[in-house]
Amino acid sequence: MKVTTVTSVANKEEFLPSWNEGLAKEKIVKFVQTLTDRDSSFFVPERERIATFDLNGTLWIEKPNYIQMEFELQSIYKKALKNPKLQNIQPYKAVFENDKDYLYSMGSKDMMRALFNTHEGENESDYINEIRNYLKSTNHPKFEKPLIELVYLPMIELIEYLRTNAFKVYIVTGGDLGFTRAISEESFKIPPENVIGSFVKYNLTSKNGEARVIRGKILSLNGNEDKPGNIQLFIGRKPILSVGNSDSDIQMFNYTKSNKSKSLCLLLKHDDEKGEYSYNKRAKNVLNLVKKNKWTIISMKRDFKRIFAFEKSE
Amino acid sequence: MKVTTVTSVANKEEFLPSWNEGLAKEKIVKFVQTLTDRDSSFFVPERERIATFDLNGTLWIEKPNYIQMEFELQSIYKKALKNPKLQNIQPYKAVFENDKDYLYSMGSKDMMRALFNTHEGENESDYINEIRNYLKSTNHPKFEKPLIELVYLPMIELIEYLRTNAFKVYIVTGGDLGFTRAISEESFKIPPENVIGSFVKYNLTSKNGEARVIRGKILSLNGNEDKPGNIQLFIGRKPILSVGNSDSDIQMFNYTKSNKSKSLCLLLKHDDEKGEYSYNKRAKNVLNLVKKNKWTIISMKRDFKRIFAFEKSE
Repeated sequence: MKVTTVTSVANKEEFLPSWNEGLAKEKIVKFVQTLTDRDSSFFVPERERIATFDLNGTLWIEKPNYIQMEFELQSIYKKALKNPKLQNIQPYKAVFENDKDYLYSMGSKDMMRALFNTHEGENESDYINEIRNYLKSTNHPKFEKPLIELVYLPMIELIEYLRTNAFKVYIVTGGDLGFTRAISEESFKIPPENVIGSFVKYNLTSKNGEARVIRGKILSLNGNEDKPGNIQLFIGRKPILSVGNSDSDIQMFNYTKSNKSKSLCLLLKHDDEKGEYSYNKRAKNVLNLVKKNKWTIISMKRDFKRIFAFEKSE
Repeated sequence: MKVTTVTSVANKEEFLPSWNEGLAKEKIVKFVQTLTDRDSSFFVPERERIATFDLNGTLWIEKPNYIQMEFELQSIYKKALKNPKLQNIQPYKAVFENDKDYLYSMGSKDMMRALFNTHEGENESDYINEIRNYLKSTNHPKFEKPLIELVYLPMIELIEYLRTNAFKVYIVTGGDLGFTRAISEESFKIPPENVIGSFVKYNLTSKNGEARVIRGKILSLNGNEDKPGNIQLFIGRKPILSVGNSDSDIQMFNYTKSNKSKSLCLLLKHDDEKGEYSYNKRAKNVLNLVKKNKWTIISMKRDFKRIFAFEKSE
């Protein structure tokens, strides 16, 4: 394999400034240089340069709890407070009474359906604006910064690097598609059409003569085995690069790996207790599969120079 | 309003060569020049330049019958022939016995569901390849050319013109999303991720260790009031330009019209019996709304110099 740097690819010093030199950065840069090199047998035309990123724990913090989960809980609580009749109806009752046992006994899929369905009838723009306000006005308990700032700077740089090399970059998350659009463009410059998530049916209505869409019931969840299905639905091509951090990304990695072109799967490892958190609770299976599948680990402790933009540059 | 031609916009003589000079072409060119002009108060940033095109009767021929309908009928017939047990099960029975009364008595939504669901379990790539073969090997009864050539050349030019002006161009059709992807890229240079149609749930499976997706049951139809809902789902922005030809595009036009930016809705009128067909059976309501809403009619007879690429240039 001949690897030459093509002129359109800026050199690696200009990109990924928050990454330490090392195996992960090296793999990424070599992969991108190879597939963008017209003389390489691994050249991939621009239209097939699809990259898919998980959201929670991959692009932003997911501890001590998923950010959307926290949003939903406070949103449901506020609704139950305002409308006491709801206090006897699930899932409002459980949230109002802080009955976590009930919620978790539903199983994660039914719980997500129940939580996401509480926005039925809401105008999608209002929903998105409410989330933006929440993310800007709510501080993270550990870092004491607004949640919107808890995005991983090296991942923003990676997305930018891929885009510079004509990748189409998508978010593929188990969270709600509309929720994710509240931050995708502002934080990652990912346009709304490049967001894939759990989704509701959107219903047409009109207000003061203006056509608008409101949220209906949940139509598709987007975790685990549903990620490849929804990648087919929204993109219609297999990714050549995927980034994730948990067991729910295994199927997306396998799907990416089955691409006829050379592919790269990157697993973010949360191993920096001081800089973020150290945990692998939902990542044990995927970690076991890394070696056999030649997936690449990104260690937050080893590979990231800085995790968040608000940290002082060294 | 000041309208100046910006240098990045090629002048109108180079574009739309199969269009006659006249009101429709003039409206289109003026609209595009205005919204791409940074000095205009109607300037629209690139990310918001969303154009949505209906497919059947807007981008290609839909007479004497919808092309996908013909494909489904022959596909179902072949399956029933191969597997006689199916001959007693609907919708195979009705198709096998050419019982059109039964099919139409289902209502168009249930008929579409029944037809599209006959592909449940099929690998999506195989399904798409089968359609491509069908479109290349089946001649149109009137024009005696392969169906794949029955696309409207002026519409290809319009899509190209919009793309040159940084529009993101989408197909938004009542037909199946996978079916449409079989021609969208080849005929219109519209990539698979820019196709919105009726869609099934895609299920993950594997064959010889290769991860792949197969078709499940229909999850969403995409006609009439569902077009704006699915535009929100797939794009997340309102279009500023929509093109259609029938009553099932009314809601998409209204949605486009409700964009805060200046918008343009184009209604293709089939009024050229010699060049194509002359009919307005499914377009009576939308035609009545044109004047009040200031939508623009494209007359195939008056505005198109050539309809199909296989016609000799004058």
